[in-house]
Amino acid sequence: MSKRLGKQTVALTSFPSINAFASIVGEKEGQGPLGLDFDAIEKDPYFGEETWEKAESRLYERGLALTLSKSLLTPDKVNYIFAGDLLNQCISSTFGIRSSHIPFYGVYGACSTMSEGLSIASMLTDGGFSDNSVVLAGSHFCSSEKQFRFPLDYGGQRTPTAQWTVTGMGGVVVGFGGPIKITHVTTGTIEDYGITDSNNMGAAMAPAFAATLTTHLEDTGRSHDYYDLIISGDLGIVGKAIAEDLLGEKGIDICNHYDDCGVLIFDGNTQDTHAGGSGCGCSASVLCGHFLPKMAKGELKKVLFIATGALMSPTSVQQGESIPSIAHAVALEVM
Amino acid sequence: MSKRLGKQTVALTSFPSINAFASIVGEKEGQGPLGLDFDAIEKDPYFGEETWEKAESRLYERGLALTLSKSLLTPDKVNYIFAGDLLNQCISSTFGIRSSHIPFYGVYGACSTMSEGLSIASMLTDGGFSDNSVVLAGSHFCSSEKQFRFPLDYGGQRTPTAQWTVTGMGGVVVGFGGPIKITHVTTGTIEDYGITDSNNMGAAMAPAFAATLTTHLEDTGRSHDYYDLIISGDLGIVGKAIAEDLLGEKGIDICNHYDDCGVLIFDGNTQDTHAGGSGCGCSASVLCGHFLPKMAKGELKKVLFIATGALMSPTSVQQGESIPSIAHAVALEVM
Repeated sequence: MSKRLGKQTVALTSFPSINAFASIVGEKEGQGPLGLDFDAIEKDPYFGEETWEKAESRLYERGLALTLSKSLLTPDKVNYIFAGDLLNQCISSTFGIRSSHIPFYGVYGACSTMSEGLSIASMLTDGGFSDNSVVLAGSHFCSSEKQFRFPLDYGGQRTPTAQWTVTGMGGVVVGFGGPIKITHVTTGTIEDYGITDSNNMGAAMAPAFAATLTTHLEDTGRSHDYYDLIISGDLGIVGKAIAEDLLGEKGIDICNHYDDCGVLIFDGNTQDTHAGGSGCGCSASVLCGHFLPKMAKGELKKVLFIATGALMSPTSVQQGESIPSIAHAVALEVM
Repeated sequence: MSKRLGKQTVALTSFPSINAFASIVGEKEGQGPLGLDFDAIEKDPYFGEETWEKAESRLYERGLALTLSKSLLTPDKVNYIFAGDLLNQCISSTFGIRSSHIPFYGVYGACSTMSEGLSIASMLTDGGFSDNSVVLAGSHFCSSEKQFRFPLDYGGQRTPTAQWTVTGMGGVVVGFGGPIKITHVTTGTIEDYGITDSNNMGAAMAPAFAATLTTHLEDTGRSHDYYDLIISGDLGIVGKAIAEDLLGEKGIDICNHYDDCGVLIFDGNTQDTHAGGSGCGCSASVLCGHFLPKMAKGELKKVLFIATGALMSPTSVQQGESIPSIAHAVALEVM
């Protein structure tokens, strides 16, 4: 029986739910406006390791352990892990979960990783393929700077539109029986408005967010104000304003019930983070540390989570390519 | 209703099928033993572009077009594309499918990409979430050498255990109603036997193949000789022999009905390819060019396809890490 709804959306009918969630962030994120929300703050940027890449792997390893411990599940009860990251060949997820022996599907959606993993896990759960799945997404400021921009030691200047990669992760368990249900998944298409400035990811990703949100509303026949809150991943201050403009042109005014994880996680006035937070770990840690606890307490009941990803690499930018982006929407509802 | 079977396997009960398949390879692959099997052979290694990365993107773009044309589907009838590749941040899949506007989930499983994508697409189809999905996997010798080893101009020597990354791709359409059914999916766990030689991927990946095959047989209660043929992705000559040894130790002798795509695609005696072919495009092109046509003709009826991936990066190897690997099994049956 088809569960398809409109062009890009599926309706989940077996009531899969988010049964546990966990977040770990670095010191800077812990000093930000949401600092008190996260489960753990690690002050050592190396996480006890000797390289930034190994630090990020350790973050994933601890994140998986914490997610499992909060769910009271042992690894043998988990049917799938979906995880991905920003490092070349996604090594931080691989090495972080290597010792768990949980069946693993690597996903790559750049900063949209949490909503991509959550989407696939939710459908597989709804379809009877999974009883318990873990979704992990994270990033590390120092490994990202080294890989995508300059080694930290170089002391490069940052443009005003640049975002600050979050050191942090979020993990969820998707299963059955919890109060936070996953009701719909809208899968994004690649959008490319021709932005070529890799220091302005917010501008590159805003069209993908606007497209996925618009399609979700069309497919479900819902008005945007069905949701208590619409959340974008890491558009940051610049991208959030562009997204509001793009939606405004279509007559969709979400301003009074819309937040962006990249805007929320840092205080731009005091933390020198320019346009805000970014990275797979940005939307993942804010979802798991800030928003899901609010849903668990009943403070938010209907939430549309849309993480966004810029699907570029340093090589593609150097070769003059524009920055294609994508966004996937997951509708969450407390029932 | 749970579709789970044993530890890592699901049984697909709605009879999803592979409804179309396409393959494109480079000139060297076209000169190999399977040359006549592929749909298209491109003699220009640049595919009309100016960089190796853009050449690989063009390969994906053409591969998608060919897969769709063989399926008689227009892009608007395709619910999902699952694609991934070996390049940093998976840019060849992103840029290759950018203009299609088909909902997209990026997957990362290194050379296991085809079986990972096929697994997820098959489950989502079986679960009623997708009517038609495309899975694409490909690789390019020159972009891989540049990224993982040395630029070609350097003229580096290759060790006897080294494999030759296939320039090629394979694409399938998963839907309903075709004769080649996808009956079971067994998801792999990360296996790591401590191999640190990045010029011996076959040895690194063989344990993952053996583990997934063993688990598949346990989960389904089948003997290995249920299958006309068991196919590994790109273990190559070295890895295939190790896999046979590892399985032999468990009393599983598959030698007389076991092939490896990396062994088949090149003639090691005349093509200077050392231990055989590798890359996402190896198992994908051989599956789509060589094996699926045999199934369509009824020459093979029951096939277990297990692509393998080495989940490393140049950075992880340089930092002294071993090479973790994974393998996912997809059971195909003509009905």
